[in-house]
Amino acid sequence: MRDVVEIGRGKTAHSGYNLQDVSLRPSRRTRDVDDVSTAWQLDAYQFEIPCVAHPSDATMSPKTAGELGRLGGLGVLNAEGLWCRYEDPTPLLAELSDLDFKGGSTARLQQMYSEPIKPELIAQRVKEIRDSGATVALRVSPQHTIALSPVILDAGVDVLVIQGTIVSAEHVSVQDEPLNLKEFIADLDLPVVVGGCTNYMTALHLMRTGAAGVIVGVGADWWSTTHDVLGIAVPMASAIADAAAARRDYLDETGGRYVHLIADGDIHTSGDIAKAIACGADAVMIGEPLRECDAAPAGGAWWHSAASHPKLPRGNYSSGTDVDEERVSMETLLYGPAAIPDGTVNLFGGLRRSMAKCGYSNVKEFQKVDLTLS
Amino acid sequence: MRDVVEIGRGKTAHSGYNLQDVSLRPSRRTRDVDDVSTAWQLDAYQFEIPCVAHPSDATMSPKTAGELGRLGGLGVLNAEGLWCRYEDPTPLLAELSDLDFKGGSTARLQQMYSEPIKPELIAQRVKEIRDSGATVALRVSPQHTIALSPVILDAGVDVLVIQGTIVSAEHVSVQDEPLNLKEFIADLDLPVVVGGCTNYMTALHLMRTGAAGVIVGVGADWWSTTHDVLGIAVPMASAIADAAAARRDYLDETGGRYVHLIADGDIHTSGDIAKAIACGADAVMIGEPLRECDAAPAGGAWWHSAASHPKLPRGNYSSGTDVDEERVSMETLLYGPAAIPDGTVNLFGGLRRSMAKCGYSNVKEFQKVDLTLS
Amino acid sequence: MRDVVEIGRGKTAHSGYNLQDVSLRPSRRTRDVDDVSTAWQLDAYQFEIPCVAHPSDATMSPKTAGELGRLGGLGVLNAEGLWCRYEDPTPLLAELSDLDFKGGSTARLQQMYSEPIKPELIAQRVKEIRDSGATVALRVSPQHTIALSPVILDAGVDVLVIQGTIVSAEHVSVQDEPLNLKEFIADLDLPVVVGGCTNYMTALHLMRTGAAGVIVGVGADWWSTTHDVLGIAVPMASAIADAAAARRDYLDETGGRYVHLIADGDIHTSGDIAKAIACGADAVMIGEPLRECDAAPAGGAWWHSAASHPKLPRGNYSSGTDVDEERVSMETLLYGPAAIPDGTVNLFGGLRRSMAKCGYSNVKEFQKVDLTLS
Amino acid sequence: MRDVVEIGRGKTAHSGYNLQDVSLRPSRRTRDVDDVSTAWQLDAYQFEIPCVAHPSDATMSPKTAGELGRLGGLGVLNAEGLWCRYEDPTPLLAELSDLDFKGGSTARLQQMYSEPIKPELIAQRVKEIRDSGATVALRVSPQHTIALSPVILDAGVDVLVIQGTIVSAEHVSVQDEPLNLKEFIADLDLPVVVGGCTNYMTALHLMRTGAAGVIVGVGADWWSTTHDVLGIAVPMASAIADAAAARRDYLDETGGRYVHLIADGDIHTSGDIAKAIACGADAVMIGEPLRECDAAPAGGAWWHSAASHPKLPRGNYSSGTDVDEERVSMETLLYGPAAIPDGTVNLFGGLRRSMAKCGYSNVKEFQKVDLTLS
Repeated sequence: MRDVVEIGRGKTAHSGYNLQDVSLRPSRRTRDVDDVSTAWQLDAYQFEIPCVAHPSDATMSPKTAGELGRLGGLGVLNAEGLWCRYEDPTPLLAELSDLDFKGGSTARLQQMYSEPIKPELIAQRVKEIRDSGATVALRVSPQHTIALSPVILDAGVDVLVIQGTIVSAEHVSVQDEPLNLKEFIADLDLPVVVGGCTNYMTALHLMRTGAAGVIVGVGADWWSTTHDVLGIAVPMASAIADAAAARRDYLDETGGRYVHLIADGDIHTSGDIAKAIACGADAVMIGEPLRECDAAPAGGAWWHSAASHPKLPRGNYSSGTDVDEERVSMETLLYGPAAIPDGTVNLFGGLRRSMAKCGYSNVKEFQKVDLTLS
Repeated sequence: MRDVVEIGRGKTAHSGYNLQDVSLRPSRRTRDVDDVSTAWQLDAYQFEIPCVAHPSDATMSPKTAGELGRLGGLGVLNAEGLWCRYEDPTPLLAELSDLDFKGGSTARLQQMYSEPIKPELIAQRVKEIRDSGATVALRVSPQHTIALSPVILDAGVDVLVIQGTIVSAEHVSVQDEPLNLKEFIADLDLPVVVGGCTNYMTALHLMRTGAAGVIVGVGADWWSTTHDVLGIAVPMASAIADAAAARRDYLDETGGRYVHLIADGDIHTSGDIAKAIACGADAVMIGEPLRECDAAPAGGAWWHSAASHPKLPRGNYSSGTDVDEERVSMETLLYGPAAIPDGTVNLFGGLRRSMAKCGYSNVKEFQKVDLTLS
Repeated sequence: MRDVVEIGRGKTAHSGYNLQDVSLRPSRRTRDVDDVSTAWQLDAYQFEIPCVAHPSDATMSPKTAGELGRLGGLGVLNAEGLWCRYEDPTPLLAELSDLDFKGGSTARLQQMYSEPIKPELIAQRVKEIRDSGATVALRVSPQHTIALSPVILDAGVDVLVIQGTIVSAEHVSVQDEPLNLKEFIADLDLPVVVGGCTNYMTALHLMRTGAAGVIVGVGADWWSTTHDVLGIAVPMASAIADAAAARRDYLDETGGRYVHLIADGDIHTSGDIAKAIACGADAVMIGEPLRECDAAPAGGAWWHSAASHPKLPRGNYSSGTDVDEERVSMETLLYGPAAIPDGTVNLFGGLRRSMAKCGYSNVKEFQKVDLTLS
Repeated sequence: MRDVVEIGRGKTAHSGYNLQDVSLRPSRRTRDVDDVSTAWQLDAYQFEIPCVAHPSDATMSPKTAGELGRLGGLGVLNAEGLWCRYEDPTPLLAELSDLDFKGGSTARLQQMYSEPIKPELIAQRVKEIRDSGATVALRVSPQHTIALSPVILDAGVDVLVIQGTIVSAEHVSVQDEPLNLKEFIADLDLPVVVGGCTNYMTALHLMRTGAAGVIVGVGADWWSTTHDVLGIAVPMASAIADAAAARRDYLDETGGRYVHLIADGDIHTSGDIAKAIACGADAVMIGEPLRECDAAPAGGAWWHSAASHPKLPRGNYSSGTDVDEERVSMETLLYGPAAIPDGTVNLFGGLRRSMAKCGYSNVKEFQKVDLTLS
């Protein structure tokens, strides 16, 4: 049934489907919206909503992480971002809210991120989030995990997120001894989330490292240029479904270890959240949609972490002035009420109503809803 | 033959087709346009055209319902709309013809619809339509059916329309005793139309409630945002065809009870009407196309009922100034002559000519016309 | 192999392909462009190019028909057009070159075409074309064939074109005795071209009437609104190929009677001409592309005959000012040289070169060229 | 598995896929970007990057060829271009950087290229490139190969490129004795590259001529109008894969002769380069992307050679002012760093990183990467 298409003699390609290619197909049953639960749990940590914030400086700061935690989600701060490079990045964030730089916005991002990471700032940021009462999660890249994780762990995080554009459990390096994720994770006593990954096999291998969660996708959104620069694209509906198959097979091979899938890419509206879960995600990673709330640290601007790469940037900068709607509170953004009808406000109220209309009462069940391709 | 596509390992999706994906394929025969009948009958009520008006306040009022009845269609007034919340909604409708509201048009709609429903107004509106001589049809939501139907029925309607975005015959509620459609309908001695539904099984279950008609679709049009907000989309060509299969199976299981299908969604032109019937509809529900006639109560503006939802609006407001053509009479809109060539005027004259060119002489026969996918 | 798709339970649709969906795939051979012939022959009449002009008043007049004949193509004048309604339509054509009419361009077209047809003018126009030395072809609609054909035939045409949007050999009428094409054609001793048709069966039946040529398609171009108004669309690549199969089967059943297929629709550039022939056409009907030459009688404006229908117009009017390029002569339009690279000039030089690059030396052979779908 | 679609009764079309239809699917492995090699070798000539410059005068001059050679690529000068028609074409190139010509830009191109080719200039240009130390490659059309090759060969080129829009090994001519590629190449002792070709069979036949490299595609880019003018389109992903199959079969039939495939068409970004190789190309022909560097001889303007055809031009002229970005050096264009994120700068650094992320270490291996169709 799976489409394998011969694009030329002897050369095949797998058909892949994006979230916008699919839609939900209600069951024969409907439910009261108040009977629906959107709760999610990662290891010992419980959340009201299956929402993990993307570690972009555009939308995440120690304060924003605290606010999101209070509201039932999980904020992830980038240990390699501006907050861990600058004592006080707020002037930079103010400038970044609406860049007007002669050399171009990408060049200005590259400049800002060329400042070295300060380990002492990492510890300070962890403390700031901890003090807010929220679950503390920090993101580090695979390249810097060996160097930075001691500081991060010493600072006392709850969840460690090892995230690069594309991460594998089998990194090959001629020069350096690469990070062995399996050994690294085995030595830790906190839940680790790793990714992004793009296919069944990598997802399965990442599960076998002992990770509590695996990120699916490369965070591609409307501003992403990964496809143009690398030729790599991740059709999210297919990637999530393939990773869900890996989760199922890994559950079987381990006799019951359930690894959470966090979908990262193509998610802009409450409808997209519903579709990501319908494809098999346990939670969604949300970046750009958060910029529309007044808690966004860069005044509504958006850039993906890959947008500041020193040699090969892979994402467009979008100014805060591109968001023409009135800013709402983070609480309104997540739970409504919405006064605009486009699915960008009341993100999880929209999810809840979608589940009710389709007849499902919790997130895990909702993964079974039928899909239509059109 | 049916496309079931594996979007990822073990996760499938049904292919769905929209009305714009299909077109009609004439048979080997042609007919005189004057030999074609577009007549439709629901229970004891006869109509010249298979046209049911959508219960949006933008296009339906007691007066408009009378006018449509006189011209051979069926108007449906919303028992939860402005006419049943305000003694005189005409100033509001005048304002709604071209909203210029600082808080946004959706916010203004939400405000207007926050006024409580007045049961005595329902009775008054029924009388107004009755006096015009037209068949009287009122729409109520499933949530308010138990509360409002006594008033509606006492007022003496001919047809009751129980319509929500997505309605099932199997609503589950932990808190309240939900509406049991089957028992409710069994107690009535007037034809009931229920919907919208999106798939074969729900359509079949709704037929088993004893309904005279089932609405297929969620009324999605160019202004709808259901897909963005809920992730739910209804490819109308497939939904109608699936419901037509349910109608056929129900006809068999009951030994002859024929339930009418009313298509609600994707219908903007005479060509769309023809295609909805070709997919299996007995009649079409028309909302937005009616705004182009001078009888439209809100001066050409358009909003779907879901656009005013207090917490999760799902549709854009479109001002009367968005319709740049000269207004025509409702009679011209339905029967021509048209002086614009885009299929929005002479809606049922277009249907009639389409049937003639394809070689069919009545609506039921026309359901058999061949389709092309392109 | 043929795609028959189940769009809903028990309801199928045939996949159809437009000319823009396909492209030519050169063979392993190439040829000198000078060795290629584009000659075409219909009955006793020989043409340098397989070009039949669409009978729209926008691009065809007695004078233009003469000019096209001189250049190797076949002009068709509309016996129901302005030239046969007005003694001198040139003031109207001048007005039509850039309509600025308060009631709308369609309304003005409807007004102009409401003038009755004058049989004596038909005779006069035939004489004018005859005097130019060109092959004389007139178009009449099936509805008026019985009334007008005596005049047309008496006037001495070479080719009679009976053309309506959709024509069948099996027209059913309750009131009138419909035109029996088979009997009608049998009585004539001149070649008759009939159409348009949209499918294999109708094409075959039209061939069995004794027609020398069958028109495939409804002349749909970028300005056509047949799909919006009637829901009917004709994917030309599929329609031509299906009709070519009918031609092959009819050739077999008659032991050698070859009926010519004239493709009418979707043809805007030399590339489209090549593709229509590649799908199986023997010649193409060209309307709108002719408006770009300085011989076009309405100064570059374009309207399809169906655009002036009194009750249900099905095509947009496009002003001569919409064509922003400098006008070329008809000879340049057909044979080059082109100084614009978009395929709208040097229409048949483009065809010739396409045939050479693909390795074919005449039109009949070129029908075998491979197609790619992309 | 290969899609052969019946577009009408008895008429089939092969499905074809463009580079933009496919994307790369990383393997389960990742690599250090520094461990990746992009080296390429044609006959005895070694290159750091698999980059062949398109012989358009817009982007190639003797000086630019030298510069590209120094940076590790292969420049190809057009022996029929402006440099071999004019002693000093720089005033023309300056005019061409931003054409403002009343008769239209195509007409001006046609004028300029109507100047005869001067054999003595060919020799002079070869010397100029030779003096820069770069590998010397000249392009000649198949029509002029017999006339011009003696001059070219006497001048001492390293690589001869025989390139036309569509070239076959089996050219048929009634009038002239056509070029016999096989005999012609057998007599030479330098590597010959021939093309473009569009399918398996032609690619195989061209390999059998003894060519060292075969060009796949017709160089179609966003400005190309080959499809509009000739109806011919080359879906590059399929064309490359088919030619790669021919390479494999020819390798087998010759017991080891490896013919290089150079993809020419659809390549605008580093991602496109990666995808062309993933489909089976050994190198890519790059034209328009080079115009963004400050070494481009026509100030950023772009026109394909076919755009100046005297009778049937097949490509749009694009002014240097259409490129709104700041010009970078050719080195930056090829190797970065990029300060814009759209894949048009750091073309081969992007390729290298794509290979690393997908887990491959050299170009030949990278041809095996999985593809996704979406």
